[in-house]
Amino acid sequence: MLEQIQVQSKFWRERQRVIREQMIPYQWNVINDLQSVNIASTNTGGDGDAQDTDKSYVVENFLIAAGKKQGKRGGMVFQDSDAYKWLEAVAYSLECYPDPKLQAQADSLVQIIADAQESDGYLNTYFQVNEPDRKYQSLYMSHELYCAGHFIEAAVAYYQVTKNQLVLDVAKRLADNIDAHFGPEDGKIHGGDGHEEIELALLRLYELTGEQKYLDLSKYFLLTRGQNPDFFEEQKRRDVALGRKSLIQGLDIMYSEFTPAYFQNDLPLDQQPDAKGHAVRVVYLSSALALGAALSGDAKLQQAAKNYWQSIVERRMYLTGAIGSTCHGEAFTADYDLPNDSMYGETCASVGLTFFAHNMLRSDHQGVYGDVMEQALYNTVLAGMSLDGKSYFYVNPLEARPQYSKQNPGLKHVLTRRAGWFACACCPPNLARMVMSVGHYAYHCDQNTIYADLYMESEAQFAFAERKLQIQQNTAYPWDGKITFTVRADQQGPEVKLALRLPEWCERYDLKLNGKEQQVTANAGYLYLDSGLADGDCIELDLHMSAQIVEANPLIAADYGKQAVVRGPMVYCVEACDNGENLQCLHLGSGDELQGHFDEQLLDGVYVLESKGCRRVFDFEQGRLYRAVNKSVAEQFRPQTLVLIPYYAWCNRAEGEMRVWLNPNPL
Amino acid sequence: MLEQIQVQSKFWRERQRVIREQMIPYQWNVINDLQSVNIASTNTGGDGDAQDTDKSYVVENFLIAAGKKQGKRGGMVFQDSDAYKWLEAVAYSLECYPDPKLQAQADSLVQIIADAQESDGYLNTYFQVNEPDRKYQSLYMSHELYCAGHFIEAAVAYYQVTKNQLVLDVAKRLADNIDAHFGPEDGKIHGGDGHEEIELALLRLYELTGEQKYLDLSKYFLLTRGQNPDFFEEQKRRDVALGRKSLIQGLDIMYSEFTPAYFQNDLPLDQQPDAKGHAVRVVYLSSALALGAALSGDAKLQQAAKNYWQSIVERRMYLTGAIGSTCHGEAFTADYDLPNDSMYGETCASVGLTFFAHNMLRSDHQGVYGDVMEQALYNTVLAGMSLDGKSYFYVNPLEARPQYSKQNPGLKHVLTRRAGWFACACCPPNLARMVMSVGHYAYHCDQNTIYADLYMESEAQFAFAERKLQIQQNTAYPWDGKITFTVRADQQGPEVKLALRLPEWCERYDLKLNGKEQQVTANAGYLYLDSGLADGDCIELDLHMSAQIVEANPLIAADYGKQAVVRGPMVYCVEACDNGENLQCLHLGSGDELQGHFDEQLLDGVYVLESKGCRRVFDFEQGRLYRAVNKSVAEQFRPQTLVLIPYYAWCNRAEGEMRVWLNPNPL
Repeated sequence: MLEQIQVQSKFWRERQRVIREQMIPYQWNVINDLQSVNIASTNTGGDGDAQDTDKSYVVENFLIAAGKKQGKRGGMVFQDSDAYKWLEAVAYSLECYPDPKLQAQADSLVQIIADAQESDGYLNTYFQVNEPDRKYQSLYMSHELYCAGHFIEAAVAYYQVTKNQLVLDVAKRLADNIDAHFGPEDGKIHGGDGHEEIELALLRLYELTGEQKYLDLSKYFLLTRGQNPDFFEEQKRRDVALGRKSLIQGLDIMYSEFTPAYFQNDLPLDQQPDAKGHAVRVVYLSSALALGAALSGDAKLQQAAKNYWQSIVERRMYLTGAIGSTCHGEAFTADYDLPNDSMYGETCASVGLTFFAHNMLRSDHQGVYGDVMEQALYNTVLAGMSLDGKSYFYVNPLEARPQYSKQNPGLKHVLTRRAGWFACACCPPNLARMVMSVGHYAYHCDQNTIYADLYMESEAQFAFAERKLQIQQNTAYPWDGKITFTVRADQQGPEVKLALRLPEWCERYDLKLNGKEQQVTANAGYLYLDSGLADGDCIELDLHMSAQIVEANPLIAADYGKQAVVRGPMVYCVEACDNGENLQCLHLGSGDELQGHFDEQLLDGVYVLESKGCRRVFDFEQGRLYRAVNKSVAEQFRPQTLVLIPYYAWCNRAEGEMRVWLNPNPL
Repeated sequence: MLEQIQVQSKFWRERQRVIREQMIPYQWNVINDLQSVNIASTNTGGDGDAQDTDKSYVVENFLIAAGKKQGKRGGMVFQDSDAYKWLEAVAYSLECYPDPKLQAQADSLVQIIADAQESDGYLNTYFQVNEPDRKYQSLYMSHELYCAGHFIEAAVAYYQVTKNQLVLDVAKRLADNIDAHFGPEDGKIHGGDGHEEIELALLRLYELTGEQKYLDLSKYFLLTRGQNPDFFEEQKRRDVALGRKSLIQGLDIMYSEFTPAYFQNDLPLDQQPDAKGHAVRVVYLSSALALGAALSGDAKLQQAAKNYWQSIVERRMYLTGAIGSTCHGEAFTADYDLPNDSMYGETCASVGLTFFAHNMLRSDHQGVYGDVMEQALYNTVLAGMSLDGKSYFYVNPLEARPQYSKQNPGLKHVLTRRAGWFACACCPPNLARMVMSVGHYAYHCDQNTIYADLYMESEAQFAFAERKLQIQQNTAYPWDGKITFTVRADQQGPEVKLALRLPEWCERYDLKLNGKEQQVTANAGYLYLDSGLADGDCIELDLHMSAQIVEANPLIAADYGKQAVVRGPMVYCVEACDNGENLQCLHLGSGDELQGHFDEQLLDGVYVLESKGCRRVFDFEQGRLYRAVNKSVAEQFRPQTLVLIPYYAWCNRAEGEMRVWLNPNPL
């Protein structure tokens, strides 16, 4: 098993550096209200997350719940989760970069949270302070188990790194409280949370503690989903009958977007062939299904996870690994309905898709999961943060035009400048915990095989029974496909093999073991080395990485007749600051004419591409919108060399248009 | 001047027949609640027009206001206007098709309305019955002057046709009441209605009565617009302070879409270079500006009208003459932002654009106004109604896909089946009054010239001073471009010339006067005959009409690289029932390969086109969304003959995809 990994990759260490130096301290200031922030609405289709304050209230809410401070509990109903996601990101940060001062801050936060927990284990500042009589009664909107799940995930991570016993005790008491209230037994609540998250968290707690009850409770939540499609509706009707107010300002309790399908509660899991409703909820649910299947071997969970996987990855995902085609309910829509400009593509959803892919690998060793993992991670997840770590995207379009976002209300959710913070601040800390733990995604193992999933310069320690192995990976990935694995291994112990993911983008590769060419063909996306690993082994994998022109399935009407450029895991885009405005008029050159080089100075160092393409000449007379195609004057183009940068790095210079899907060579 | 016209065109008489036989009796039943209807929401971005009833309340509301019936006043705040638009359509119907029974119905409605009018002339059932203390105090949402305007327009039309004195008296008393409450004088209200309409209506009343005060009041409303951008905001704030409820259910008084720009009230008219906000409001305002300029010679009105014209026609209009790029506020967005699938393109907005164009012609004799008039009329306006007159579109997209409309909430306003009625029932009666009065748009005149604007088989009577002229137009337009004008004219009297609009789509034409070829070149879109009209003159105009392939200005990103097919004034589209699903995969043949014929059986008789094009072969492997472009296998197409029908006739067969903009020939 993977015991420990040190990420040495220059690429990832730089992303981690800005999170460690900028984002984590900044978020600490935000949650402690040491710094006022300019809060952007996320425009989820309602006005639900609009706030008239620049205060986060996060830590203050816990102090109020603990009786240590007077005041009004503030922020969104799920505001507690901001603290938990910060704590989880800090755990992974401390794992890579020990920092006593930061750890002391985190310990103090753990104490504040512990103080707020009630004696029966219940923990949620909104309901403790504002509506104690409403606990667990408004699960369609309360996010109680969602917040609990984020705390438990944070606690597991923080305990694993720091051995802080208090955080684990609070988490177990909280899980026990939930166990006491939910389940199939009479007198318990027969349902789950409107926003899935507790399912995954309980599985992590089970993995850490080995306590069966947590696995059972997670499976209960998973298998209960959709059994009673009216579950949330009943709670809504009761709340309306009791005259209770909505828990999210501006969103009516009976808000029309909150259908059973929005909550993945319209059908039992084994009858849900499509990813429907809120995209983050779907991938959090799916991640739990996949991990639950891996931990319990339950075939029903496995099948449900695969159904979701196919629906998302085969019919409802953008080239950048973004998901969620509409801002209305931040949701999936229909197969192949993938508009590039009005889409949602929430950062959190792609973080969740990364979890989902990673968890699928736990029980099903297919390279496609790793392909999607790097697709989501290197493109949408990283695009969620500016290079300096100071501003964030919630929505990640494949096509943006500042003037339209300003003047077309249907596009106002598509920011063309990253924001400093959000009223619903889920994405920035989610991104932080993902990037700080990226090493966890480099390998996965089964009984006797180490699978290399995400290539990155790193040193990893493995243990198989009593046998220890170490793999030093040297590579400039994601900018270059040459990877060298140097093995140090105990002589004694079980045989351990190595399997190397052959990315879907890779058309040619060379593989050498100790200097000797290996003839290995991929099996389900992995190159399996024949012999077991031995001390001193040197494996050289050369994934030939060149820029490629890709096209979309013709069923995707939005991309029909268009082409995009990728290189390795990176999707490329054009920006107006390199190419001028009206990017819709640009045409790529032929694939042969794509040239590239690594530019150390540009955007903190990126591999930049150039295409000898052209631009449509504006030969329309002034004031003319439409005209007959004049056959005597063929469409005219003037040569233009297109400059393409990796998508994740867009919007770090001047505000302007951006576009991923381009016109093909017209000639 | 045009005194009278009898429309003989088979095309238009069939449209008028369904309105006369289906729509007018149906609407009579609806407004009298003799028939329950299945009411569709129009999804204007709020839930404002959702109703939980199938009752219209329209006539009942007047009876309640008159004290002749007990009960609760029902329907939208602007429900009265449904009766007025019905009355106006009936006026034009009676003008073409005398019908004593229908006239008796209309007379009875006039009496009911007259009974409801208060002694001071005020007339609005909502405020009379529900909130008498709130009259003229919530103009941002009250639609009081909007309803008044529709009544006055109806009254003018009905009086002109039937000489019913009561209707004119009610209209004048109503206008006088408004005059007493609005204007620059101290103690009057210094502003207008949130929804323009009264401005145009007062001008029509002035034209009929010659009473200067109505012209002055209209000009007051026009020139006041935008002088105080805070006008509506002040009324909102006062209503909130007084605890008054919103006048439109589900739309908060402070609803964020209702900005000053939404009401065209953000800037004085001479500083409004762009058409902004609610599209119907913009064109109703513009129509009044154009007519006001024609009637008063006011240069400021003329300039404001031209600014709006250029903004709309040169930068913000669809090929079909549809306007309004977003459902959020049913509004204009940004220059060249013309999405084909998520657009609004309200039927009423194109009706209003037709008014606007027609009124521009009154003072500025340029063919472009006629071009846009027929573009809007033959495409979007007519598409608003099914061929049988029983169902209607509010929204008129250039691209529709039933599955996406069902599953993507951002597209739910795009119906793919016409609805039987709407909660906000503005479009059906608006369309009815437009089509029944279409003869009025055939010609316009100035001092000594008759301008032929819309070609249609008809017999028209003109009078210039004491001289009478008659023009018999024989043509199969819009299906054929040959038009013969036969003149009967008094010998005595002023010289009268004829000018014939040369449509922008027409590349070649022949013109003969009494059998002799005329060499006339167009001047600002009109062919002016040299000599004055004489009795017995026969003018033969042959506008060579053939199918053409058109392209959009490359600044319109949504249409970039696409082509559309037009023939004469008709825009064509493809439907799935003729061409199979996934219309995005169709490619047109070359322009030379467009063939067509008139099919008497199809869609009540249409000129159908065929293009020897092709369809992209689905060569993607199962479950694959994206792939590298494989240079060894070029994109593959199989031949397919595309069947194109006129856009206005879409959605009269099976429900399915529809598309106007197609891919060009790939070969």
